[in-house]
Amino acid sequence: MDDDSPQARWERRTEVTLAVTALVFLASYTVLVLGHGLPAAVRDACLAAMLAAWALFGVDYAVRWRLSGQRLRFVRTHWLDTLVLVLPLLRPLRVVKVYEAVQRRHGQPRLALHARVIVYSSLSVSLIGFAGALAVYQVEHAAPHATILTFGDSVWWTCSTLSTVGYGDVTPVTTMGRTIAVGLMGCGLALLGAVTGSFSSWLLQVFSREGDERPPGS
Amino acid sequence: MDDDSPQARWERRTEVTLAVTALVFLASYTVLVLGHGLPAAVRDACLAAMLAAWALFGVDYAVRWRLSGQRLRFVRTHWLDTLVLVLPLLRPLRVVKVYEAVQRRHGQPRLALHARVIVYSSLSVSLIGFAGALAVYQVEHAAPHATILTFGDSVWWTCSTLSTVGYGDVTPVTTMGRTIAVGLMGCGLALLGAVTGSFSSWLLQVFSREGDERPPGS
Amino acid sequence: MDDDSPQARWERRTEVTLAVTALVFLASYTVLVLGHGLPAAVRDACLAAMLAAWALFGVDYAVRWRLSGQRLRFVRTHWLDTLVLVLPLLRPLRVVKVYEAVQRRHGQPRLALHARVIVYSSLSVSLIGFAGALAVYQVEHAAPHATILTFGDSVWWTCSTLSTVGYGDVTPVTTMGRTIAVGLMGCGLALLGAVTGSFSSWLLQVFSREGDERPPGS
Amino acid sequence: MDDDSPQARWERRTEVTLAVTALVFLASYTVLVLGHGLPAAVRDACLAAMLAAWALFGVDYAVRWRLSGQRLRFVRTHWLDTLVLVLPLLRPLRVVKVYEAVQRRHGQPRLALHARVIVYSSLSVSLIGFAGALAVYQVEHAAPHATILTFGDSVWWTCSTLSTVGYGDVTPVTTMGRTIAVGLMGCGLALLGAVTGSFSSWLLQVFSREGDERPPGS
Repeated sequence: MDDDSPQARWERRTEVTLAVTALVFLASYTVLVLGHGLPAAVRDACLAAMLAAWALFGVDYAVRWRLSGQRLRFVRTHWLDTLVLVLPLLRPLRVVKVYEAVQRRHGQPRLALHARVIVYSSLSVSLIGFAGALAVYQVEHAAPHATILTFGDSVWWTCSTLSTVGYGDVTPVTTMGRTIAVGLMGCGLALLGAVTGSFSSWLLQVFSREGDERPPGS
Repeated sequence: MDDDSPQARWERRTEVTLAVTALVFLASYTVLVLGHGLPAAVRDACLAAMLAAWALFGVDYAVRWRLSGQRLRFVRTHWLDTLVLVLPLLRPLRVVKVYEAVQRRHGQPRLALHARVIVYSSLSVSLIGFAGALAVYQVEHAAPHATILTFGDSVWWTCSTLSTVGYGDVTPVTTMGRTIAVGLMGCGLALLGAVTGSFSSWLLQVFSREGDERPPGS
Repeated sequence: MDDDSPQARWERRTEVTLAVTALVFLASYTVLVLGHGLPAAVRDACLAAMLAAWALFGVDYAVRWRLSGQRLRFVRTHWLDTLVLVLPLLRPLRVVKVYEAVQRRHGQPRLALHARVIVYSSLSVSLIGFAGALAVYQVEHAAPHATILTFGDSVWWTCSTLSTVGYGDVTPVTTMGRTIAVGLMGCGLALLGAVTGSFSSWLLQVFSREGDERPPGS
Repeated sequence: MDDDSPQARWERRTEVTLAVTALVFLASYTVLVLGHGLPAAVRDACLAAMLAAWALFGVDYAVRWRLSGQRLRFVRTHWLDTLVLVLPLLRPLRVVKVYEAVQRRHGQPRLALHARVIVYSSLSVSLIGFAGALAVYQVEHAAPHATILTFGDSVWWTCSTLSTVGYGDVTPVTTMGRTIAVGLMGCGLALLGAVTGSFSSWLLQVFSREGDERPPGS
């Protein structure tokens, strides 16, 4: 993509705003799910913030669709954007991208590949895990025969899922909770791939460097 | 293998027909297992379709045996075909191969290696997982002391097995169900290998490309 | 090691005998553990076969110690042999080595690296898993509060452990059973490493080969 | 870092002392946690030894902070040291580093990369696992509805967590226990990455060596 195209300019300008909006969305959702005892006014404000943030995401999507000059193909070529529009809880992942951009502008040297993979996969997994734990807690805690009764249970269950340990002492029982769980399992697999893959590549790199340093006959 | 040999020609001609037959087999099996309340006529039609599809697989196997000019060695050298003849639920995996062939004929550029691995392993795992969930549900749902009582339970159990999470809140209790489960565990391991392996190779590739782009002194 | 040293000659001569003895040991142990209803004479014969096989392993160990000309250092440098002498159930793993040697003598072409890793890790895992399932069944099936009551349970538990799925519907409860379980978990990890590692190396190989075939400008 | 800087000299001089102190800390903690029936005097002595060791760690941290000439930045750039100061149970990991240094001074040839990774990851995991099992046992064994009642249970649970098997027959129920558990899961993932990564790099190395030995036409 050309760096001076209208799309690129739009994306550069809205980057930070959208990341902040995503965090506002997540924070409002958190207050809404965990704040059982809060006054109705606060809860309504949170709901309003969530809807406003969602609307903003919709506007951004519409503008980029328009700027792209594509018709229905846009939905397919930008399937990741479409998915994130439907599931705005995945939005905060954008923060990872913005974090990198900010680091680069401040002239910070880039981390080595394996360090970057570990930092980004940790950040992404924390955000996805937190959003997943919230969503599972919301749909499970009042279900009949539920075992995930507190937010602590939900976080504990999320950790055991993302690491593919899977104790099974607390598990979702509703269809919605299980659907979210399957998504988290996929993330757990990807995390495992990221950790083992970057470790493997780092080892290979260390090894080839060591091989270069030594004289051939040693 | 020579591209113009009778076997190759036979395979090219029957490719699409067999893939469609495999999907018909899977669809009929799905209706048969899940359609408890359907009228007997529909169920009989499904059973007939399944048997007809199986017969077609047998004819294909026999023709290819004949064309190969081999005797009993054929069973051993084509052990994958033999296995698939005995367990026709694995047949739909062929669709993955056909999908690739169709993509190529339409002149679509091939995806990069890691993308192809991820797409094909996802497709294969979805098909195997669906067939496995169906089979486990069929043998388990009426067994004494069973914990897999609905098809939803079976899908949930399959997902937790394929990702090697393994909660153990629902587990097969019959010998047949456990045998299928062991097969699915093997697939889970292979999936993990595919995901981590392709991730690792992609990382290495990104890394070596970055190393080339920068001047040596930076 | 020199190929014509007395040790090498001894090892080449005893190779097949020891592999057969190891299989006899495993078979006798199997009959002893699973044959509850067999007459006492058969069980005594099995016990005698086991002890005889074990004695043979001891003789082999002693001869090799003598031939090596080492003192106590032998125990440390050949720690794998020492371990296998103490835990003769691990002996059948030797079969894998003999299998390769036999393949080579028959002039069979060697498999590619990833295929060999997959074949050998499958063989090793099957043998270790079978021996582990037997041992766990023996120590668990009569323990109070045991959940592993039949050999089928034990095999099912072994499969779920080796694939690191770990349902936890049946688990060992005795200290001895859990010690064996920890050994099997280690094998599970190594198996995972073998599968993912060989898959990764195979992918890289395919990739670099494809890169060579295409013209540089495409 | 310059090898003759005051920091480097301080680190070289205190290396062995600190490693011994760390082992004293771990041993005292072990006695304190497991020695329910010991006389109060022994328990007090252990507590004193623990606090003295901790104080020594604090002194070492302070000296290094001073020598570095940095202000608050030191806490961030040496975040690993800071973490280890707060959680002294992680200290014994230093032993791994000292072990390598001692090996090198004795003129022992370095192991190959994959062997080193396997040895160090095994050592680290054993130490972390032991410390984790102790800590989980301490916080869990007296909690209401606890399933981890003996130290044996705790060790068993730790093994099943570190290998990501996760049976779930015994699991922590307190918040503190679960927090430690999440740390151990992270270690389990890293261990898996170490094992699979080093296996993969070893395979690639074996493969490229084999490729060099054979004539190109074979």
